[in-house]
Amino acid sequence: DPNLKVFSLNSNFDLAQEIAAAIGVELGKCSVTSFSDGEVQINIEESIRGCDVFVIQSTSQPVNENLMELLIMIDALKRASAKTINIVMPYYGYARQDRKARAREPITAKLVANLLETAGAHRVITLDLHAPQIQGFFDILIDHLVAVPILADFFKEKDLSDIVIVSPDHGGVTRARKMADRLKAPIAIIDKRRPRPNVAEVMNIIGNIEGKTAILIDDIIDTAGTITLAANALVENGAKAVYACCTHPVLSGPAIERIQNSTIKELVVTNSIALSEDKKIDKIVGLSVAPLIAEAIIRVHEEQSVSTLFD
Amino acid sequence: DPNLKVFSLNSNFDLAQEIAAAIGVELGKCSVTSFSDGEVQINIEESIRGCDVFVIQSTSQPVNENLMELLIMIDALKRASAKTINIVMPYYGYARQDRKARAREPITAKLVANLLETAGAHRVITLDLHAPQIQGFFDILIDHLVAVPILADFFKEKDLSDIVIVSPDHGGVTRARKMADRLKAPIAIIDKRRPRPNVAEVMNIIGNIEGKTAILIDDIIDTAGTITLAANALVENGAKAVYACCTHPVLSGPAIERIQNSTIKELVVTNSIALSEDKKIDKIVGLSVAPLIAEAIIRVHEEQSVSTLFD
Ligand SMILES: Nc1ncnc2c1ncn2[C@@H]1O[C@H](COP(=O)(O)O)[C@@H](O)[C@H]1O
Ligand SMILES: Nc1ncnc2c1ncn2[C@@H]1O[C@H](COP(=O)(O)O)[C@@H](O)[C@H]1O
Repeated sequence: DPNLKVFSLNSNFDLAQEIAAAIGVELGKCSVTSFSDGEVQINIEESIRGCDVFVIQSTSQPVNENLMELLIMIDALKRASAKTINIVMPYYGYARQDRKARAREPITAKLVANLLETAGAHRVITLDLHAPQIQGFFDILIDHLVAVPILADFFKEKDLSDIVIVSPDHGGVTRARKMADRLKAPIAIIDKRRPRPNVAEVMNIIGNIEGKTAILIDDIIDTAGTITLAANALVENGAKAVYACCTHPVLSGPAIERIQNSTIKELVVTNSIALSEDKKIDKIVGLSVAPLIAEAIIRVHEEQSVSTLFD
Repeated sequence: DPNLKVFSLNSNFDLAQEIAAAIGVELGKCSVTSFSDGEVQINIEESIRGCDVFVIQSTSQPVNENLMELLIMIDALKRASAKTINIVMPYYGYARQDRKARAREPITAKLVANLLETAGAHRVITLDLHAPQIQGFFDILIDHLVAVPILADFFKEKDLSDIVIVSPDHGGVTRARKMADRLKAPIAIIDKRRPRPNVAEVMNIIGNIEGKTAILIDDIIDTAGTITLAANALVENGAKAVYACCTHPVLSGPAIERIQNSTIKELVVTNSIALSEDKKIDKIVGLSVAPLIAEAIIRVHEEQSVSTLFD
């Protein structure tokens, strides 16, 4: 379909190529570079007039660069008469700043939603938002994909016996429950609490993990502090082996070293965020969300073509 | 006045301190840092409820970081019930992307205006916009300051004899004319043209510069290619000495080396953009726009206080 165009910006070119291949199109031609002073320079090198355009960009590190690239691309597409501008943002940066936890804090996840709409986005396709409430920050349509089935299938094929799915904190119990349903396994929860202020946290495990193979699941692994401490607590409390998985491998700061030195046997992640070469260690297994996203793009584009018929 | 608050973000802290001192206030307390993954983290550490807030931030290099800091700060101020949020942006990044010069180009200067308004800015104070038309990109009030008087005063005090003000290109003639009026001097123009495609540009000088002291003036000096070639052309054509001045010293890439090796005797710039240590060379003289900006802030705040009386 010549009216379907898929463009990649700079955050995750490999994923974009996989997505384009899965759809059966070539990536749109554009150059996204910067001027000598660091200002983003975008040139769209083919006509997109009247097309449904999909732009693939995770707002992962460097988040501000990647976000500005995206906003400027949206502006360029709008001025070049795209019919619809659809943002494919597998990783939604600033998603953890989604509420005023303290006085005078920004709600940057909402700001990002407003910026995308102001620039001219018509629709956003994203994956495993840190809080599903972020969908409500948008007035435009948002398609929220989930990676749990992909992660679950990986462990299903591993055919591990006597497993337990573990949430590393209270916030992630629903996610662990979904994973457990797919693997027909029980769940457990790491229950951190600080007995008194300025006293070290105590890690208590709710649920039976003794002699079992634990699979920790989280949405984002950033500095990997939470997940590696959780893994160690599981082993100390008698787990036979510990696997971990997450959708978004942010892996900043000490993350790789912590994972390397932890009791985690294998960390399974998706390619929602591209791993730089120094993060590609043996312990980390990557799964692709390209087929999932390709399917979503095809579905959205069909919908948009149908709506044209009724215009 | 306890209802006037001035905050600085990270682009130009020295200028902000000078401005606060000139007004006679302390800078507002806030911490602007980043999380391990590079996301901007802002904490405003004093109440600003009901205040007229002025945020000082040039969107100079790193432009995308500085712009996102600013947008997030505006969001935080809005949610903390500031009465008015006034952006002091001495250097307006992306100002050179102010029109569609080619097909399918973005107009990022307009995008930036929309982003500032969306975040919640009420007013913008800026200095020597690359194109004054950018004022029309805003629906909110914009105060446009000019640095020509400051630059002119510097040369007046130098008491050079037989000067000529030179515009390095056609676009800057109006600016050169303003400078010349203040110094009671004639003007000249560097008239670049390419006789045929793929043939080197010819530098022709319109106006009399022989035996005179030339003062080149531009708004932005970025890689310093234009200004240093212009200076060399002036010397080759008989100028006695060449000075240069600009409002915004972007000075990216080879700029410092080019200036160092050029026939420019002295380059006079303002502190609209902070110079990193490696850019502080003897040839570069810095003038402060802090008094000019402080005056503008006081005027705007007075206006805002008066309007409260009539609310
Ligand atoms: N990029 C980030 N890195 C680390 N912490 C963050 C980041 N963004 C937000 N936060 C903090 O993480 C908390 C939200 O995480 P959560 O409780 O898991 O939703 C808030 O207290 C935020 O201040
Ligand atoms: N940051 C930048 N660095 C260098 N050139 C730029 C930058 N931003 C825009 N431009 C280009 O500069 C030209 C506008 O400059 P001017 O003709 O002086 O208004 C346009 O052709 C832009 O593509």
